[in-house]
Amino acid sequence: METPCSIARTLEVLGERWTFLVVREALAGTTRFADFRATLGVAPDILTSRLNTLVEAGVLERRPYQEEGRRTRHEYHLTAAGGDLRVVLGALQQWGDEHRPYLKGPTVVRRSSDDRPLHVAYVDDEGREVPLSEVRFVRTAAYPTPA
Amino acid sequence: METPCSIARTLEVLGERWTFLVVREALAGTTRFADFRATLGVAPDILTSRLNTLVEAGVLERRPYQEEGRRTRHEYHLTAAGGDLRVVLGALQQWGDEHRPYLKGPTVVRRSSDDRPLHVAYVDDEGREVPLSEVRFVRTAAYPTPA
Repeated sequence: METPCSIARTLEVLGERWTFLVVREALAGTTRFADFRATLGVAPDILTSRLNTLVEAGVLERRPYQEEGRRTRHEYHLTAAGGDLRVVLGALQQWGDEHRPYLKGPTVVRRSSDDRPLHVAYVDDEGREVPLSEVRFVRTAAYPTPA
Repeated sequence: METPCSIARTLEVLGERWTFLVVREALAGTTRFADFRATLGVAPDILTSRLNTLVEAGVLERRPYQEEGRRTRHEYHLTAAGGDLRVVLGALQQWGDEHRPYLKGPTVVRRSSDDRPLHVAYVDDEGREVPLSEVRFVRTAAYPTPA
């Protein structure tokens, strides 16, 4: 949490390949260790480590569950912070689809509940899209001054 | 470009620390080698390599310029694809500021040309914000089937 750059702090969580793939699967509805493992083909010790990282980062929450006649296990559910990663993943997908296209076209698209196509963009406080040409990044007083 | 995952293809470009920092500076208006070097404190050979990566990826464009009595040098300008990274960087910043906050508060905020606060969100084709709870990721026919 020490770096003043919020992008770097986000990539500390998301930047590692497996961690990011676990989030992708969680956003697709996966909650159980065995399902993460089967979908991602990841070694169990790596998966355990990445799930722990995401729980510690407040992206996933561990919940116990028990199937009849078996010992208690845990499910992993996205927290509110984890759910907000939908915006980050959508932005990455959208850029990749447009500027690094896959031969067969997009593998995942973003839709509203009533099936309208969506995209990620800048909006103002009234929920209206603002063109990219009108977007500025403004430094605040907290911006670090060069030594 | 081989992986079907558009997020992975984007992180192939943006995932490396210095590459990403160069894009951040370019979005803030930096164009010259000496200025990238001074702001980032990066070794010249690493900076050369990252600028080349970004030119090859179509994010930056190299343009010659010449100052009186000096040899021709190059400036690096964002392409349209590079400018679109504003959405990706904004999404990463916003998540970091909200969920991995910096002690002193955000160092950079997003504003419209007429200084209204902006955020990154999902919008429909009519430019209206759609709540995250109504956003779905839908697999297309191009989605790879497990072997």
